[in-house]
Amino acid sequence: MKPQNPWETKLVRDPLHGFIGLTEREVRLAGTSSFLRLGRIHQLAHSHMVYPGAVHTRLEHSLGTLYISGRIAEQLKLKDQSRAAVRAAALLHDVGHGPYSHLFEGVMQSLGATDFDHEAVTRMIVARDTEIADALGEIQGEVLEILGGKAGLLSHIISGGLDCDKLDYLRRDAHHTGVSYGVFDIERILRSVCAVRSAGEDYLAVEWKGKDALENYRLARYSMHAQVYEHKTRLIADDLFARAVTLAAEEGVVQKGDLLSTDAERFLPAFTSLDDASTDLRILTESKGPARELISNIFNRRLPKRAYELPLTAQFVSDSLRRRELSRLPKERISAIEGELAKDANCSPHNVIVHPQTIAIKLYERFDQAGGEEASSLLVQRPDGSVTSMEDESPITALPEPIRRVFVFCPKECVPRVNDLATRIFGYRGIYTPPDT
Amino acid sequence: MKPQNPWETKLVRDPLHGFIGLTEREVRLAGTSSFLRLGRIHQLAHSHMVYPGAVHTRLEHSLGTLYISGRIAEQLKLKDQSRAAVRAAALLHDVGHGPYSHLFEGVMQSLGATDFDHEAVTRMIVARDTEIADALGEIQGEVLEILGGKAGLLSHIISGGLDCDKLDYLRRDAHHTGVSYGVFDIERILRSVCAVRSAGEDYLAVEWKGKDALENYRLARYSMHAQVYEHKTRLIADDLFARAVTLAAEEGVVQKGDLLSTDAERFLPAFTSLDDASTDLRILTESKGPARELISNIFNRRLPKRAYELPLTAQFVSDSLRRRELSRLPKERISAIEGELAKDANCSPHNVIVHPQTIAIKLYERFDQAGGEEASSLLVQRPDGSVTSMEDESPITALPEPIRRVFVFCPKECVPRVNDLATRIFGYRGIYTPPDT
Amino acid sequence: MKPQNPWETKLVRDPLHGFIGLTEREVRLAGTSSFLRLGRIHQLAHSHMVYPGAVHTRLEHSLGTLYISGRIAEQLKLKDQSRAAVRAAALLHDVGHGPYSHLFEGVMQSLGATDFDHEAVTRMIVARDTEIADALGEIQGEVLEILGGKAGLLSHIISGGLDCDKLDYLRRDAHHTGVSYGVFDIERILRSVCAVRSAGEDYLAVEWKGKDALENYRLARYSMHAQVYEHKTRLIADDLFARAVTLAAEEGVVQKGDLLSTDAERFLPAFTSLDDASTDLRILTESKGPARELISNIFNRRLPKRAYELPLTAQFVSDSLRRRELSRLPKERISAIEGELAKDANCSPHNVIVHPQTIAIKLYERFDQAGGEEASSLLVQRPDGSVTSMEDESPITALPEPIRRVFVFCPKECVPRVNDLATRIFGYRGIYTPPDT
Amino acid sequence: MKPQNPWETKLVRDPLHGFIGLTEREVRLAGTSSFLRLGRIHQLAHSHMVYPGAVHTRLEHSLGTLYISGRIAEQLKLKDQSRAAVRAAALLHDVGHGPYSHLFEGVMQSLGATDFDHEAVTRMIVARDTEIADALGEIQGEVLEILGGKAGLLSHIISGGLDCDKLDYLRRDAHHTGVSYGVFDIERILRSVCAVRSAGEDYLAVEWKGKDALENYRLARYSMHAQVYEHKTRLIADDLFARAVTLAAEEGVVQKGDLLSTDAERFLPAFTSLDDASTDLRILTESKGPARELISNIFNRRLPKRAYELPLTAQFVSDSLRRRELSRLPKERISAIEGELAKDANCSPHNVIVHPQTIAIKLYERFDQAGGEEASSLLVQRPDGSVTSMEDESPITALPEPIRRVFVFCPKECVPRVNDLATRIFGYRGIYTPPDT
Repeated sequence: MKPQNPWETKLVRDPLHGFIGLTEREVRLAGTSSFLRLGRIHQLAHSHMVYPGAVHTRLEHSLGTLYISGRIAEQLKLKDQSRAAVRAAALLHDVGHGPYSHLFEGVMQSLGATDFDHEAVTRMIVARDTEIADALGEIQGEVLEILGGKAGLLSHIISGGLDCDKLDYLRRDAHHTGVSYGVFDIERILRSVCAVRSAGEDYLAVEWKGKDALENYRLARYSMHAQVYEHKTRLIADDLFARAVTLAAEEGVVQKGDLLSTDAERFLPAFTSLDDASTDLRILTESKGPARELISNIFNRRLPKRAYELPLTAQFVSDSLRRRELSRLPKERISAIEGELAKDANCSPHNVIVHPQTIAIKLYERFDQAGGEEASSLLVQRPDGSVTSMEDESPITALPEPIRRVFVFCPKECVPRVNDLATRIFGYRGIYTPPDT
Repeated sequence: MKPQNPWETKLVRDPLHGFIGLTEREVRLAGTSSFLRLGRIHQLAHSHMVYPGAVHTRLEHSLGTLYISGRIAEQLKLKDQSRAAVRAAALLHDVGHGPYSHLFEGVMQSLGATDFDHEAVTRMIVARDTEIADALGEIQGEVLEILGGKAGLLSHIISGGLDCDKLDYLRRDAHHTGVSYGVFDIERILRSVCAVRSAGEDYLAVEWKGKDALENYRLARYSMHAQVYEHKTRLIADDLFARAVTLAAEEGVVQKGDLLSTDAERFLPAFTSLDDASTDLRILTESKGPARELISNIFNRRLPKRAYELPLTAQFVSDSLRRRELSRLPKERISAIEGELAKDANCSPHNVIVHPQTIAIKLYERFDQAGGEEASSLLVQRPDGSVTSMEDESPITALPEPIRRVFVFCPKECVPRVNDLATRIFGYRGIYTPPDT
Repeated sequence: MKPQNPWETKLVRDPLHGFIGLTEREVRLAGTSSFLRLGRIHQLAHSHMVYPGAVHTRLEHSLGTLYISGRIAEQLKLKDQSRAAVRAAALLHDVGHGPYSHLFEGVMQSLGATDFDHEAVTRMIVARDTEIADALGEIQGEVLEILGGKAGLLSHIISGGLDCDKLDYLRRDAHHTGVSYGVFDIERILRSVCAVRSAGEDYLAVEWKGKDALENYRLARYSMHAQVYEHKTRLIADDLFARAVTLAAEEGVVQKGDLLSTDAERFLPAFTSLDDASTDLRILTESKGPARELISNIFNRRLPKRAYELPLTAQFVSDSLRRRELSRLPKERISAIEGELAKDANCSPHNVIVHPQTIAIKLYERFDQAGGEEASSLLVQRPDGSVTSMEDESPITALPEPIRRVFVFCPKECVPRVNDLATRIFGYRGIYTPPDT
Repeated sequence: MKPQNPWETKLVRDPLHGFIGLTEREVRLAGTSSFLRLGRIHQLAHSHMVYPGAVHTRLEHSLGTLYISGRIAEQLKLKDQSRAAVRAAALLHDVGHGPYSHLFEGVMQSLGATDFDHEAVTRMIVARDTEIADALGEIQGEVLEILGGKAGLLSHIISGGLDCDKLDYLRRDAHHTGVSYGVFDIERILRSVCAVRSAGEDYLAVEWKGKDALENYRLARYSMHAQVYEHKTRLIADDLFARAVTLAAEEGVVQKGDLLSTDAERFLPAFTSLDDASTDLRILTESKGPARELISNIFNRRLPKRAYELPLTAQFVSDSLRRRELSRLPKERISAIEGELAKDANCSPHNVIVHPQTIAIKLYERFDQAGGEEASSLLVQRPDGSVTSMEDESPITALPEPIRRVFVFCPKECVPRVNDLATRIFGYRGIYTPPDT
């Protein structure tokens, strides 16, 4: 019998990549409680309310991210230890996510956390979870450096303009939702990825022959953002959930104290006990107040409808200062407007939602602007070795301004009244169509 | 603006069929609590422990089944009311499923129910759920007849050898797991499906031009059964769950009385309060006994390993009477062996599982044997109008015997001892490989 | 047996659309010599020299175009006669193509034809070919009007910014080449296509719900142009072929007199006797001169290499007047430069090619600019019925300037010398890499 | 810039495998005239008359075969030289094919060649073509051994029950035709392929974990044979072509003397000057007799129709001796019947075709029967290292008898008369449907 390839001790079937090989260490990591919890967190929060197929999990995506990171590591001919570390970092990059992923970051903010982000929690878990630490062994330090953005090129593989995370999820989300927007030529990118050096630091780039695939990738990224990730129905359900958790915390059903604790020993068990369903069900079974009703509304698809939509463009809001203002409504002002609308329209206050939305058009970041620790520009290496960025090479460009608009949602029966009131409050006539269109 | 097609009041994106059109009535049905609950029941129970992508739900599948039924109805040129009824029946055909779908039928049996099946519950819900009844309106009676197998051809569309259920799930399961086994030429089948008459009853068949696609379909069905649906890891997790619910019922954590009640008013609320996660979490939070541990083991992937596998073939068990006997081990005998193995191997009794498996090779049913209410044979209409069955036309055939084997699973550390003991108890040396292979 | 659907008298299997249904008339049309000749003309000329899978034919594409036109006709609820006419026009829209499709239009120009285009030949064939006329019967007149751009909306279905031609070939070319660039959400577009009215004329548009798919489509169109259709290897082979035919005409191997005749009786038989292979083989077997060598070079993949590439951008050519000049080199000047290069580099003159390339970025045409008979803008109908264009709705835009560059190709062994000479002649240092990169 | 992987000096885009990497030697081989000629030979002869997409070439398939052989070589950890040799053998395995591939073997037989097969020509070309010899260099000898079936395992990779040829073409043909029959889990097979030893020789097998994919593969192989490769329309066109070449040889249009010469110097140039279109066009332009008409009929889709089909089964032909007889009609008898039918039905003799067809059900070959030089059984290695064959493991089996039938085709207008006459001559009533069904 032939000798085992240590990078493929075990093979896992994947709808995108065919088979994903795991090392022995990775098999252990994939069996830890912290990792398995990702199997109970949806990749796309409430998107399945729009796309019924979109119930895939962060666990599946994390395995896919490992695969991509491994392909990049091979392409870059990384040494075995770095390759192992970057793969482990890819596998674990999402373990710090709360229920419904990114959504929970907003929830934590509402609860009063400052500077909460899932990446910090990821690092906390990788640093402290004993199961994970045992499985990682001697590469734990390097994995933490990578996840902390301090490992240069290795960190860029995990998080940057072109990283293993996005390379996996754009196509995976397309596969399970059934849209064709997220299709790009991943094989071409993986075969042309390379490292380039600038100001003493290494960055991820693609060789010239991969330029077209990179263009394709950034257009796919834009399309998925505009067309899937920011879909309004998902957004409403997400808002209801966030509101429910905040209310549940006020009731004591969700342990706010623990979640805000700076003591990891207290914070982590509270945080990791939460996944999508466990949070929903805890609120459903324990809350006596409106939090319960909100979750029940999500379960039973009783979602507020769009009563008002104001695109913050010159066509709708001619005054540019006012546009700016409306795009930055402070939280207190939003709450006040919500209260006013609910009262005047005489409808359930918790189901009136004012939601300013900003969709950045991620086509135009330039290398020199991208700065900071994160190099989010898309770099291309010319045949002569010099480096350019996609933004300079492509004739395709995007408006410098993100797409901004203000939504107001409310229960179906109040839609006409709320539309009138919102038009009055904001001072502009927005887009208005009967709820069912 | 163009007049609306009433069969497509709303379009839902589907990874398999592109877009699925819904009538107004169907939109209402899809918004009922009973239907939405299917969004919290996995299509393939614990298969995601083998195939991480396989977390898709009965809700998604039900929409797909509606689509297929609509295509068949169109192809057969059914009248509008029948078309509406068969579509509604397709949409609702799974609402009677319990947590983890088919698995819960076994659980109910363990609890003491006799003749429990999800189809009867489906009909009970369709008959009594007021939300559903309101949405169905005047077609409720016809839908119940279809679901009850009393509507001839219309019933065969929902359940038979070739039905909208299987036409949807075989390919859907392939899509989300990432296997290619379930791929067959659905478009060809949908375009050649027709009705044939025999002994005064109409049956579903395909025209001669669809014969090859039908062959393809039955091979795909066989492959998915042998290779996905009966995967041993899923089987173990399923067994643990079933055992946990039975134990939880003994503790009173799951309301056995309600579940066994013949009073629908009592039975239905208890039953429909259960979905995959809610059952898991109820046991996890309320059980004080081994039930809790079993669910926790599933959550944390601490699954028993295969300690012994005895194929019931002449090669392994030369005595044919003994083969027959072993394939029909009574429940009490299984429990006794489990107890004996756990005791003698000195390992946790709840994690020792003896599982006789039977995989019927669904290639060979003949029309004249299929009988009863269900016509499970695959019929083909010849160009001259006469009818034959796939079994008579195809050179491909299957052994008349199903694949049978006896598995023994136990905690990893007891595997060698349990293998010895099982070999002794069953009297035959089975297949034995170290747990990790 | 069920009554036949007249639109599906016959079903043809298609790799893109599954099955394509044909009426009896369409079956006859598809059996005419003029149509079958399309089975001997590659869709993508010499692209198979880059993408080995790209040998698919205009015949396959024409069937696909018929399918799309039928879907649009159904969506627009056209009356049966218009539906039949637009489908026939779609099926026949390419019958006027010469060998290697668009490439032959350039050849005709080189031979001295003024205003030759394949669409005029298509109309000539549809008007005069008796087999086609017989099959068309009473719809011949309407088909000719559609193909002549005189049938308003029906003409726009065949040719416009969003037409059945492009909707088919973008994805078909992607399928057979294996690139993922041409993937867009065709199902969404087909389900949201509608007619809008402006200044008394009907145009094709998509409803608001199809806007994202339309964006996706125009990005796919751009990608396929930049990345597949304008690939330099194809371009060289195409140039060699064009040159060979011109030389063969000088020798009398290709009947120039017939091809330039304004007498259809003389022109048509000469023209339609030519397909890809018959032209190649006629030159190979009958030419005694350099034409033979050029075709032989294509057959044996002895293609000139890129010796010089000058992007006409400010970075490479700072003088904008000079950029303009270089992008519009007159034919005589090109020939002169080619002669000079061949002589000074001492290499075979027929294998030195100067090729100015212009790739229009087809993202930015505006409705008000599109004008003329052709409405090439992409229109979107808002929910309130008003009409906007993709260009006004999308944040994605393109540089107003097309991509322009000047290529020089020559035999491998002359590359370094030709590079030097070209740099001198054009006065700018271009991109230069060794032939194999 | 990173060091080049020598196995991927050049990447070619492939619709099936994404990218195919080539070594420098392989780039040279792929540029030889003998190889490029494969770009003018259809993979599936006249199948495009049924499946318009099926115009893909032997060149594309040969590149795909190279890819698969490379994956197998990698999986088996072959040494570099063997890997290079087996890849080259895969790339070149089809260079000996004549026009319309396998069809030409029958033509050669009709011309009087005994024991002609394309594999012998392949070896002749690899041995004598100087371009190929130069590119192969020191591995030429090993490549010839592999192609000659004398290199044990390496030969089995190229030709056997499971070989790189079939692994490529089954799926490729499915891709371009648009059928879903040929889909199987190639990735699983490639990842589990291994070498096993029996009686001192190595054979290709798959590991136990690949058993299901192997089952899937053999079902796909069966389906493609029964449903695509043996389609009757292709068969008729193929028959017309074969007949045309035979007639053209009688006229001297095709050089029979050269083709039958045992002198390679004479044979090879004659043979390799023929490809699909060049043979068609030579006959079209040079033949004065019926050969010309037959090719013209193919070009213009004037194909004979099925007038009679007699399945050689007990149901149609109860006498088993007679069945045997009919399945083995000698050539002279076939010609005599054709003549008789044409005369009595008063129709063009060259368009009356009697075609006995035999479709072997390739599911059931056993290792012990497979014998000879070719090991066509599908072997599986058990976890304990012992070897079994698919036939012994699978519950799916096939009738031992191939599917046999006798077709009679003739011009449409003679169909009814020929049916009567054939029924009389053969003595049994066959399947008869009007030509258009």
